[in-house]
Formats: sequence, C-alpha cells, structure tokens
Amino acid sequence: MATVPLKDELDIVIPTIRNLDFLEMWRPFFEQYHLIIVQDGDPSKTIKVPDGFDYELYNRNDINKILGPRASCISFKDSACRCFGYMVSKKKYIFTIDDDCFVAKDPSGKDINALEQHIKNLLCPSTPYFFNTLYDPFRDGADFVRGYPFSLREGVSTAVSHGLWLNIPDYDAPTQLVKPLERNTRYVDTVLTIPKGTLFPMCGMNLAFDRDLIGPAMYFGLMGDGQPIGRYDDMWAGWCCKVICDHLGLGIKTGLPYIYHSKASNPFVNLKKEYNGIFWQEEIIPFFQQMNLSKESTTVQKCYVEMAKQVNEKLGKIDPYFVKLADAMVTWIEAWDELNPPTKDSAKATNAASK
Amino acid sequence: MATVPLKDELDIVIPTIRNLDFLEMWRPFFEQYHLIIVQDGDPSKTIKVPDGFDYELYNRNDINKILGPRASCISFKDSACRCFGYMVSKKKYIFTIDDDCFVAKDPSGKDINALEQHIKNLLCPSTPYFFNTLYDPFRDGADFVRGYPFSLREGVSTAVSHGLWLNIPDYDAPTQLVKPLERNTRYVDTVLTIPKGTLFPMCGMNLAFDRDLIGPAMYFGLMGDGQPIGRYDDMWAGWCCKVICDHLGLGIKTGLPYIYHSKASNPFVNLKKEYNGIFWQEEIIPFFQQMNLSKESTTVQKCYVEMAKQVNEKLGKIDPYFVKLADAMVTWIEAWDELNPPTKDSAKATNAASK
Repeated sequence: MATVPLKDELDIVIPTIRNLDFLEMWRPFFEQYHLIIVQDGDPSKTIKVPDGFDYELYNRNDINKILGPRASCISFKDSACRCFGYMVSKKKYIFTIDDDCFVAKDPSGKDINALEQHIKNLLCPSTPYFFNTLYDPFRDGADFVRGYPFSLREGVSTAVSHGLWLNIPDYDAPTQLVKPLERNTRYVDTVLTIPKGTLFPMCGMNLAFDRDLIGPAMYFGLMGDGQPIGRYDDMWAGWCCKVICDHLGLGIKTGLPYIYHSKASNPFVNLKKEYNGIFWQEEIIPFFQQMNLSKESTTVQKCYVEMAKQVNEKLGKIDPYFVKLADAMVTWIEAWDELNPPTKDSAKATNAASK
Repeated sequence: MATVPLKDELDIVIPTIRNLDFLEMWRPFFEQYHLIIVQDGDPSKTIKVPDGFDYELYNRNDINKILGPRASCISFKDSACRCFGYMVSKKKYIFTIDDDCFVAKDPSGKDINALEQHIKNLLCPSTPYFFNTLYDPFRDGADFVRGYPFSLREGVSTAVSHGLWLNIPDYDAPTQLVKPLERNTRYVDTVLTIPKGTLFPMCGMNLAFDRDLIGPAMYFGLMGDGQPIGRYDDMWAGWCCKVICDHLGLGIKTGLPYIYHSKASNPFVNLKKEYNGIFWQEEIIPFFQQMNLSKESTTVQKCYVEMAKQVNEKLGKIDPYFVKLADAMVTWIEAWDELNPPTKDSAKATNAASK
C-alpha cells in the first residue's frame, strides 16, 4: 500500500563511515536520498564519500559552531553523536544505519530494500491497545482476527520503525563473550506493534522514525568521551520514545526490514563501555515502566522536559551522571527548538494525547 | 531443548468429529495420546472413531450424569462444551483442536508436528515483562538482545501456547463477508510472549495449556443452545486467562505451530452468533483491561471467583446474560474442584503471585 517517499521527505543519518564498501553496497537504495554524516571521531580526519552521493558532513567543530555552548549535549567520540543529524535535518522522516550494516537478502535471495520497508511501516497505522495474533493487520493478506475490537481497528500513527539484523545479532558484551559463534539466520517475516505499556530494547543500527511525530525524543544521550557509559545511547532513546509514544497515543513497530550486520564489535571493549549500564538498567527500566507523564505534557518537547525532571529527581540518586544527563536532555530540547522553530505541524501530536 | 512428553502427561480434547479424515490425517501425531471427545450435538447420534485410537467420549447425557445440576455451566450444541474435557482430564497438559484443522506444512514442505511445538512452547519460559526484539530468546539460535535486563532473563512459567492457522484465517463474520477469498499463506517463523497488561484474541482451534497452572480459568462460557451469543467461548477464556496469568506471574505465548484450517464456517450463521459479542466486546475488553485482582487471590480458582463477582457487578449492567455467566463461572469452579480435589501441586502457582 505504501510507496517510497520522494527524496525531499527523508534523510539518511550515518554516524560515521569507516568502510567505503558500505555506501557502494547501498548505492542503488541510497543514491536518490540526502545523507547527513555526523563524524564521531577526530575532526581533523576526513571522511571520504564516493562520488554520486548527495550529502552534508558535520564534524565536532561544526557541531560546536552551530550549537555553541549547547553542543555539550552532543556526545563526542561515540556514535551517539548521530542524533545531531536528526536535529539539523529538515525532513519528515529519518533513517539511521551503522556503517557495518549491509544489504541483506530475503529467503528468496532477493536484496532487501530496507528503506522501502521502513517507510511502509511508518505509513501504516500501529495497533498498541490490543494484540493481533496475525501480526500487522494492515499488511497484504492479513487483517484483524476474530475478537479484535472494531473501535480499535483504525489504529494510531506510527512514529518509529525498528528493523532487525541477520548474521551478527545485537547482543550485549556478556552474551557476545558466552556465544561468540552465534549468528542470526532466522528471517521472521513479520512486523508488529509493541503494545502500550511494554518497553523494548531499541537498537540504533537500523532504525527509522517520523521526525514530526517523535523527533525531539530521539536524543541519544551522553556517551563516549568523558562519560561513564557507552552503548546505551539507542536504549536510552528507546525507553524515552516508548513512554512518550504511549502517552501521546503513537505507535512503535518492530520486525522487518532486516539488514546484514557484518561484524561483531569487540566484546572486551564493549564490556568496559556497558558494565555501568548493565547494572544501572536494573533500576532505570522499572523507573520508565512506572513513569507517569502529566496531562499538561501534550507535545513531545513538554513530555521530554517533564521526563528530564524525573530523571534528575529519581535516577540522580543512582549516580551523578544522571543529573548531568537530565541537564543535557533539557539542553537538547532547547537546541532542537532553536534549530526547528515550532510550526503548526509540530503541534499536531497534541490532540492525540488522550489515550 | 524440549522433548514431546510421554503419553501420560497430555490429553487431546476435541469438541466433535464430523470428519473421519481428520483423525486419519493426524494419526501419526495423535495415536500415541489419549483423546477426550466431547460431543457437542445430539447425544443420540454416535461419533465414529477409527480403530487404533485410545479415547473416551462424552455426550450430553454423560455430562449431566457426572456433573448433576452443575452441568448447567457446560454449553450445549456448541463447541464450547469442549471445556468439560479439560475438567475431566487428569493430565498436566491439554491440546485442543477443531476437526476442520489439518496438518500444515512448513516452508520446506515438511509436515508440522503441532503438538511437539506446543509442548516446546509450554516447557520454555515466557518473558512478559520486557519485549525481546529477536522474539523467543529461548529458541535455538536466539537469545536476549542488548539492553534486556538480566534480572528478567529467567522468565516465568508458560501457561498457554496459542497456535496459528494457515489457509483460512480466523476472521469474524464481517471480515469473512468482506474478504471471502482471503487466505493466510504467510508462515511467520516465530513464537513470542504476549506482554503483561496486553490482551489478545485467543482462538480455541489450535491451543495448548498447562492444566496445573491455568486449567480452572480455561472455561469456555455459556454459548450455543439457549444463549444470546456464540463464537466468543475461546475469546472469553482468553481474556480471563490473560488477566489471571498477568496477576499470577505466568506467561502466554503465541505464534508457532501452524495448523491448516481447511474450511471457513458460514459467515451468515456466524454473524447471527456473533453480533451481540461484536457489540458487547467494546465494553468487555476495557473491563478486562482495567481489572484488578486482589492480593488475596493467590490461586487460579480464587482469581476466577473474584473475577466472576466483578463480571456480575460490572458487566451485568450490559445484559442479564452476564449475571447468568457470572453464576456459571462459579459453578464451573465448584465442578472443577469436585472433579479435581486440591493437591499440593495445585497450590504451586501461589508463590508466583508476587509480580
């Protein structure tokens, strides 16, 4: 039912490009789109982009120049810096992908156009209030099953499309260490809505979202250089986005499309980055599960600022890092609003805040 | 990881057998098990069971004789009567299937052993408190993904395994009428836990459960002869079971195995049975979504009786039918306890009632 949107509706955000094969492999699918590359390392190094791609590239110096003191909210020497790209984009949709993710093949051997599937996911409604056992009821050949309330069949707007990975699964360091040889070879041919009230681990490797609906909540936090934690950038964004989507009556889908994740990152390095997160998430997840946002929070920005306040108050007790993170969340929203002055459209989510 | 249990651990419950091909087709998979056939129509007619099957058969006269006045809680002239079979079974596991459901083939063309997959589902833990994006983490080749809290990786006991249908999907009458030619051809190779707090439409066509964990909640209500509603027997059981599983910290899985559903029932007849349910479910589902069970309800029976009281009080306002149903729910529990005197095992669920 959905068609791939025109070039002027979607930007592709890439945290860095260490591998020239990456863009060459995606060329048939990406060439018609605009790329935003946010260089995650040393700004003096240059990233080479093959001919034929339309792109803009930001390094740390650019970020500092554009955001001034507010640049403090953007992570340095970590792929979490990609969220700067979400902020400077002017398009409705964002697709973000890591440079070790290649084109996967479906069971028939055909190349998967991940971007096209993400757009289909975003253009079809979500169904967070009741589970449909035949999965996405809007897909060709499927529908709502017997016993699905008719009042819920309209669904709600989809804000996030979370894609999966063949080959190297997205495991934490302990699981990587325990199962070094595990590969994901199972192509599960489905897309489903994550039900209201349920949190999920959102991975930033292969992710698309509607900036107009959820953009300001897609903050990847403070990771990397000078921070006590890494590899929780996308998780943080996922927890925040899910709670806000539930509050505003928006949907999140997961499943198709698959990309081919070519290479596992070093589990020893990962363990060093993750160990605080592995410990802290045991408190952070119940915190998000129990979070209530007030009726007054009728926009993503208002929700996010209210959330920052609760992070400060409740997670600040775990570690001073969360006080700093809460401040950065507010700075992020200020920077977002400065670069994206409110329009009529951005108030659109407001009337959804009833459920 | 799981193996099919021995004959003395599982009964197959079938509401009726109108088609001799049915048992012949399932012979390689069913012959080693005991069948309980609950004849849903005229008791003077005889059901022919092919040689080689070990079975017991109950008709209405048998039900009346065994339950006495309490037989009023068992539906007449409706496949909902199958729940009598759950009550008289003495086994740990039940698999129930309709007689128009045949052996399906997996994408490689191999016959699917539905029973084996159900048992695998029931023997593997469920994960209702957080969503795992690679689906069932206990399946070979899968695991918990990065960001899944370690404290939740033990999972909880699985009480229900809900299987799906290739060919004729389980649609309501309006959808059947609108899409007479729709067939389900998509084999989605996954099993997943339905998250805590999320209701789903449970279909009784291809269903397995652990009697010790959830049996007394698997009541299929009052349908058929003399009742204002049909085709909501399994839905009713599904809503009740899900709320009780959430309360007691038990899991429900859906997905594999598929059966081949050979024939759509008559949509005009179905519409007549369903129309009250289609209307009433708009109030029943929010009722179940908002239901709170008390801390004192630490067994399935106690939960179910508390639930019956709330059905009487809150749904009785919709239609006097629900007052009658609430009474039947209590009668069902009395009959269950009479036929299944409490043992040490049946109190097992008690200590799970913490979440």
